[in-house]
Amino acid sequence: MSDAYHELARSFARMAALGEAGGMLNWDAQVMMPSGGAEARSEQLAALDVTAHEMLTDARAGELLDRAEADSAGLDGWQRANLAEMRRQWQHAHAVPSALVEALTRATRRCEMVWREAKPDSDFARVKPYLSEVLRLVREQATAKGEALGLSPYDALLDQFEPGMRAARVSEVFDDLAAFLPGFLDDVLRHQAAGPVPERPQGPFPQAKQEALAAQLMHTLGLEAANSRLDTSSHPFTGGAPEDIRITARWDESDFTTGVMAVIHETGHALYERGLPDAWRRQPVGEARGMALHESQALLAEMQVSRGEHFLRHAAPVMRDALGGSGSAWEPDNLHRLATRVEPGYIRVDADEVTYPAHVILRYRLETALISGDMPLDELPGAWNAGMRELLGITPPEDRLGCLQDIHWFDGGWGYFPTYTLGAIAGAQLYRAACTAEPGIPSYLERGDVSPLLSWLRENVHQLGASLSTDEILRRATGRGFDVEAFKGHLRERYLAP
Amino acid sequence: MSDAYHELARSFARMAALGEAGGMLNWDAQVMMPSGGAEARSEQLAALDVTAHEMLTDARAGELLDRAEADSAGLDGWQRANLAEMRRQWQHAHAVPSALVEALTRATRRCEMVWREAKPDSDFARVKPYLSEVLRLVREQATAKGEALGLSPYDALLDQFEPGMRAARVSEVFDDLAAFLPGFLDDVLRHQAAGPVPERPQGPFPQAKQEALAAQLMHTLGLEAANSRLDTSSHPFTGGAPEDIRITARWDESDFTTGVMAVIHETGHALYERGLPDAWRRQPVGEARGMALHESQALLAEMQVSRGEHFLRHAAPVMRDALGGSGSAWEPDNLHRLATRVEPGYIRVDADEVTYPAHVILRYRLETALISGDMPLDELPGAWNAGMRELLGITPPEDRLGCLQDIHWFDGGWGYFPTYTLGAIAGAQLYRAACTAEPGIPSYLERGDVSPLLSWLRENVHQLGASLSTDEILRRATGRGFDVEAFKGHLRERYLAP
Repeated sequence: MSDAYHELARSFARMAALGEAGGMLNWDAQVMMPSGGAEARSEQLAALDVTAHEMLTDARAGELLDRAEADSAGLDGWQRANLAEMRRQWQHAHAVPSALVEALTRATRRCEMVWREAKPDSDFARVKPYLSEVLRLVREQATAKGEALGLSPYDALLDQFEPGMRAARVSEVFDDLAAFLPGFLDDVLRHQAAGPVPERPQGPFPQAKQEALAAQLMHTLGLEAANSRLDTSSHPFTGGAPEDIRITARWDESDFTTGVMAVIHETGHALYERGLPDAWRRQPVGEARGMALHESQALLAEMQVSRGEHFLRHAAPVMRDALGGSGSAWEPDNLHRLATRVEPGYIRVDADEVTYPAHVILRYRLETALISGDMPLDELPGAWNAGMRELLGITPPEDRLGCLQDIHWFDGGWGYFPTYTLGAIAGAQLYRAACTAEPGIPSYLERGDVSPLLSWLRENVHQLGASLSTDEILRRATGRGFDVEAFKGHLRERYLAP
Repeated sequence: MSDAYHELARSFARMAALGEAGGMLNWDAQVMMPSGGAEARSEQLAALDVTAHEMLTDARAGELLDRAEADSAGLDGWQRANLAEMRRQWQHAHAVPSALVEALTRATRRCEMVWREAKPDSDFARVKPYLSEVLRLVREQATAKGEALGLSPYDALLDQFEPGMRAARVSEVFDDLAAFLPGFLDDVLRHQAAGPVPERPQGPFPQAKQEALAAQLMHTLGLEAANSRLDTSSHPFTGGAPEDIRITARWDESDFTTGVMAVIHETGHALYERGLPDAWRRQPVGEARGMALHESQALLAEMQVSRGEHFLRHAAPVMRDALGGSGSAWEPDNLHRLATRVEPGYIRVDADEVTYPAHVILRYRLETALISGDMPLDELPGAWNAGMRELLGITPPEDRLGCLQDIHWFDGGWGYFPTYTLGAIAGAQLYRAACTAEPGIPSYLERGDVSPLLSWLRENVHQLGASLSTDEILRRATGRGFDVEAFKGHLRERYLAP
C-alpha cells in the first residue's frame, strides 16, 4: 500500500483539524467575542488559513499526490475517491498564487465593511469601486482556477462550492424553472386567495421560550444535546465540528416562526455533518459532498418536513404549549397554511418556497454576466430591478431592497447562489424518494418520530460523504440527477392542492 | 538590518497567533463545549500544538537564529531582547525529541484521567503507576533540557515557567520563609483570637447577582468590558488574548467571597496581559515575563488591593448593594477582617495569605526530591503529611486532602509551584513600591479609583514585557530582587496590627 497516500492522509487530517479550529473561532467571533477582540481574531484566523494553505500548496504535497496516484493499485475504492478529492482540493489551492489570495482577502474585507455602511443608505455608488476591485480579483482567480482545471472561469467558481456542477447544466435547470415559475406563481396566488386566510398567533413570544422550543425541535429532528449548542447571532448559521455542532439563530419576539424555522433549517445542515462517515473523519472523502446537497438537507428538514402537514400535526401542539398559546391559530392546519404562505417580495432570505428560486435565478444570471464581462458593473442595479420585474412582477424601490441586500458578492462568494435552488430541487426529490422507499415516513412524522427518514438519509446521503459525485448520489437515491420535474411536482402538490 | 531576524519575527508572530487560537479553544472546552466535543477538541488542539512545535524546531528556524545572532549589530535593544527570547524558546523546544513530547502528552492525559477518579477515593495506589510514568518522562525531559541549557534537571523545569530562576535561589527564599512562618503563624492566631470574630454575611447569594457584582469589580479594577468576558467553569482561570480576555469563575451561593475574590485574582492576571506592549504583540519579547510576575499581578489585585482596608471602603457598599445585603456584616472593617482571616487548613487553593506559602514550600521540597531521585514516589504520601505537620501543625487525614489535591504533578506541571509564592513576595513588594512612588494610591483606592496604581504597574511592569529579566524588572521597580523582608513586613503590618 502507498506510503505517499498515508502521508497525505495524515497531512489532510491535520489541515482538517486546523480548519475545525478556524470554524470554532469563527463561531466564537459571531456569538461570544467581545467587540475589542475583532482584530486579534482576524490574525488568528489568517494564521490558521495561511498555515493550512501552505501545507496544501507545499511542493511536498504535489510530489506525494503524484506518487500516490502512480501507486494507487493497492488502494480500495474509498481511498481512491479520497485521493481524487485530495487532488481536487490541491488543484483549487495550487492554481491561485498566494499574492492573489492575500489581495482577495484584503479586498473582500474592505468591501464588506463598506457594504455594511452603504446598504442602509441604498448607496450603491459608494460601494461600487470596492465591489469592482473584488470582481476584478475574483475574475482573476476564476481564470487561474479555470486554466488549471480546464474549465471556464465561472465553472471554476461553481466547482468550489458544488464540485462537478457546470453553468451549462445550471442554465438548463434554471431556464426550465424560469419558464415555469411566473405562470405557476399566478396560479398559486389565485388558489391561495380562494382559500382561508391563515391566522397569525399573537405574541409577544419571549426569546427564552423560543430558544427552549427551538432546542426541543432540534432534538426531535435528531440532533443530540451532547453534540450541539444553540445560541444567538445576527445571522443564523451552523458551525463547529460534527461531534460539536454550533447552531445560531436570531429571535423576533412578535413572530416565533422566523427563529424556530431558521433553527430547523440549520438542523438539517447539522444532521448532514453528524451523519458523515466516522471512518473517514478529517479526510476529504469524509466531508460533505457539496453545497447543493448540504442545502438539500437543510431544505428537506425545513421545507419538506417541518413546513409539511404531517410533522406539523406533532409540532403544532408542542409549539403552542412551549409558547403558552391557545386558540384556533395553533391548529396544525392553520400553522401549515401560515408556513406555506406565498407572497412575492424583495428580500431573498424572507422568500417563500415558490418565489425563492426567482431570487436565485436572477442572481445567477447577473453574476455569470459580470464574471464573463458581458455586463459592466454600472448596470447592476438597473439589471437587478428589470430581472425582479420579469421574474416576480415587482420592482425594488431602492437598492438596499435590491442588489445591495446579500453579502455574497461583497464578500467574495461568487458562484455560490445556484446551490440554494439546486438544493431545493434535490431536497424535494430526496424526500419523495425516501417516502417511496419507506411509505411509513409521513405517519412517523405525525408522531414526531424522524428516525425512519433520518435512517434513510444517513444511508443514502450522509454516509456516502464525498465518495461519489452529487449526480451519482442523487441517481443512486432517487433514480435521477437534479430533477426539476420532481420539484415542480412537489410545488404543484403543496400549493395547488384542492 | 537582519533579514533573518525579520523572517523569525514573522514566524514567531504566526506561532503566537496559532497559540492564541489554541487558548481560545481551551477556554471554549472549559466553558461552552458540549460533552460530545471532547475528542474532536483534543485533535484540534494537538494539530495546533504540533504545527507550532514543528515551526519552532524546524531546521530553518535554527539557521535563522544563527544568522540573526551573527548579524545582530543593526538590531536595537528590544530587538536583541526579542532575539534572545526566541533563542530561549527554541532551546526549550529543540532540546526535547518529538517522540518524548508525544509520550509526555499521552502519559499526562492518561494520568490526569486516572487522578480524577482516584482523588475522591483518596486512592494514591491507583494513580501511582501513572504518576510514576509521568515522573519518569518529566525527568527525561528535564535532563534533556538541562543538558541543552547547561542547567540541572529541576532548574530546567523551573526555567520553563520562570526564566532565569534557579532552585538555589528558591531554596534560599523558601528556607527563610519556612523559618519565619511557623512562629509568625502562632503570633497571628493569638492576635486574631484576641480581636473580634468577623461576621459572615448571610446568603443565599444568587449566582446571577454574584456574576454582575464580579463583572462590576472587574471593570472597576481596570478591565474594559469591550475586551473581556466573564463566564463559569469548574476552576477559575484567565484565557483568551490581550484584547479579548476570558475570565472564568465558579460560584457558591452560600459564600459570595469565593467567586468574587477569584474573579479579582484573575483580573490581576488579565490586566498584565492587557498592559503588555502593543508594539511587540505576538513577539516573544512582548509576552509576560514569567509566571512569578504573572502571579504577582494577580495577588497584587487580590491580596494587596481587594482584601486591603482601603479598597474595601469602596467595595463593601458596592457588594452590599449588589447582593441586597444589610447590617453590620457589610461594614468595611468587618469584610476586611473576613478577607484576612487566617486558619491553617489542608487545601492550598482555600488557604489564606499567611499559610499559603507553607503549602508551596512543601510541594517545592517534595518535587525537587522526586525529580532528583532523592525520594522514591512510594514515600510521597507519608512525606507530604510529615511536611504538613512540620510547617502548619496539621496532618491530612486522607490523601485527597493531601498529596492528591492538586492537578499539577499528574498533569505534568513540575517546576510550577514555586511561582505562586515568588509571586506573593513580588506582589507585596511592588505594591509597597507603588505606594511609595505614588503616596495617594490608598486614598484613590478608597474611592474605587485604581488609575494611579494601574498606571504605575503599566509603566513599571506590564509595558516591559519580557525585555528585561524578572530580577531586573523587580530591581528597577522596587530597588531589590525577590525580597522576603518586604513580604514579611507586609504580613506583620496586616496581621499583627494593633
